[in-house]
Amino acid sequence: MEGPTVRMIDQRYLPHELRVYVAESYKDVAAAIREMVVRGAPAIGAAAAYGLAQAAMQGVEPEDAAEVLRATRPTGHDLFFAIEYMLRAVGQGENPAKAADAYAALDEERCRRIGEYGERLVTDGSRILTHCNAGALACVDIGTVTAPLRLAHARGRKFLVYVDETRPRLQGSRLTAWELAQEGIEHVVIVDNAAGLLMQQGKVDLVLVGADRIAANGDVANKIGTYEKAVLAKENGVPFFVAAPTSTFDFAIRTGREIPIENRAEDEVLSVGGMRIAPEGVHALNPAFDITPAKYVTGFVTERGIVRPADVRKLRPGAARRSARRPAKKSTPKKRKRR
Amino acid sequence: MEGPTVRMIDQRYLPHELRVYVAESYKDVAAAIREMVVRGAPAIGAAAAYGLAQAAMQGVEPEDAAEVLRATRPTGHDLFFAIEYMLRAVGQGENPAKAADAYAALDEERCRRIGEYGERLVTDGSRILTHCNAGALACVDIGTVTAPLRLAHARGRKFLVYVDETRPRLQGSRLTAWELAQEGIEHVVIVDNAAGLLMQQGKVDLVLVGADRIAANGDVANKIGTYEKAVLAKENGVPFFVAAPTSTFDFAIRTGREIPIENRAEDEVLSVGGMRIAPEGVHALNPAFDITPAKYVTGFVTERGIVRPADVRKLRPGAARRSARRPAKKSTPKKRKRR
Repeated sequence: MEGPTVRMIDQRYLPHELRVYVAESYKDVAAAIREMVVRGAPAIGAAAAYGLAQAAMQGVEPEDAAEVLRATRPTGHDLFFAIEYMLRAVGQGENPAKAADAYAALDEERCRRIGEYGERLVTDGSRILTHCNAGALACVDIGTVTAPLRLAHARGRKFLVYVDETRPRLQGSRLTAWELAQEGIEHVVIVDNAAGLLMQQGKVDLVLVGADRIAANGDVANKIGTYEKAVLAKENGVPFFVAAPTSTFDFAIRTGREIPIENRAEDEVLSVGGMRIAPEGVHALNPAFDITPAKYVTGFVTERGIVRPADVRKLRPGAARRSARRPAKKSTPKKRKRR
Repeated sequence: MEGPTVRMIDQRYLPHELRVYVAESYKDVAAAIREMVVRGAPAIGAAAAYGLAQAAMQGVEPEDAAEVLRATRPTGHDLFFAIEYMLRAVGQGENPAKAADAYAALDEERCRRIGEYGERLVTDGSRILTHCNAGALACVDIGTVTAPLRLAHARGRKFLVYVDETRPRLQGSRLTAWELAQEGIEHVVIVDNAAGLLMQQGKVDLVLVGADRIAANGDVANKIGTYEKAVLAKENGVPFFVAAPTSTFDFAIRTGREIPIENRAEDEVLSVGGMRIAPEGVHALNPAFDITPAKYVTGFVTERGIVRPADVRKLRPGAARRSARRPAKKSTPKKRKRR
């Protein structure tokens, strides 16, 4: 944020071009979220926080700006969490820009701690599958999924990351591969269809994904295809972990069935980079997220420790912190039998 | 086939352009199979048959041409089946062109009968998921998966086909959607990642896919991603059927573990239509097929009836035909519980 101007990397042009998107008002920020200039639940939250700060500095009624920002994308929870945080801070008379900075700093700290708790899952020789992008671009600093990877890499461990390309928007091949290449972490891109084969062949030791919203029972909304990989992980006895800060947990929602799934434009499916890949006249369905029931999740890597689905309620604001902090390392079996 | 020239639709340019590929010799036919000018197990078989006829007419030793043609693609079985058929026919002094025509006619008849047996699975209001292309383009005439669909449509039934786009080569959005549009069959393209969500939401009544090779125990090699959809179908109680002629069954192979999986160029994953979609320097793994264990298959729709995995051995050449012909209609439960 520079004065009342918010700047962000325009993720639509990566990895080919590093463009900066300049938002002159909260309406530009809202457009950036809607059009996926900025994406990834925590990064959307931070963008919304800065949008609200900008609105306040430009004399816009905070609740008016909040209403526009809330309407951009329905599925992720950080967006709503950040908006509530900012409304509270501004309502209490805090400096809007400082409040947004504080929100971003909190996000950064949460990611750092997710890295500390999660890096123990990444052992020497691990082969890790990830879906979509939950890296630095999706968050404020080091990412959620990439935080453990970066830390394990910094500590000298050797491992391989299979990067699902993640159709339709290709956040895996475009963004995750780009981030891992920048970090010098060994990786290889696969089509989403190939993840099952690799698991069946015993070539995947761990699945690690981010989340857009997590219900009170541990059901996870994340990028379309996550549910498929979770079912395949369980079928093949591969541990399936979700890395997400507590800002992604929505305790107002009991199960994943209550999470709205955003349907996006069919053109995202029928064209790639402006080039039509399907015959004219053909239509597409484009749900952008799916719901992975808690029974497929081995554990959640949060800034408060690794938590089993049954213990998600302990992360609820006000719940005793002590119990949530105990890492659930023992609940990470190498092979889980189907029940 | 016109004189010693073999002509085929160049599937690489569909749906945007209808180009004809002209093969002047069996070497051109081999190149066409390798480069996916022609694709789909039965169509590859027919192309190889014509390539062998062409070689024989041009005075090439049939076994020499057979060796080149066999080396084009390792996974599908029709290729090897057709080559053996032609070597036998030519060895017995048959006219090569007539033998190839007879092979193609057999393929056509097998598809027609697959349609007759399979159309009963497509009831009014059915919502059917398919993966890759097993339509007319993949076969000689009406296709394997599309034969039941076309027949049910001709009989006035209304149903919806979800077309997996089928990365990396997009045979679903490029070819299956094109064929269904030509036939006026209602359909919608989805990314491969969305199939699981639709099944979880109870929006899929039947999965119907083709096959490249089927082992004696009923394990199925088919386009990468088929295994993923089969696991999800079982998890969600959705019947999973494989439509394939008996020429796709390889009784020399006991289980799917013996089927070689072709790895194709990484560029198929990293580029779309010549446009790079991943950062430079990034690599990809590109297995083109996967193996679906027989336990996920509800039934096989063959030209000799609908057969359960346990009864595949009855299709073995020489096995009593009577037992194989009994359609396994009763083995199509609406909801299958996980064991």
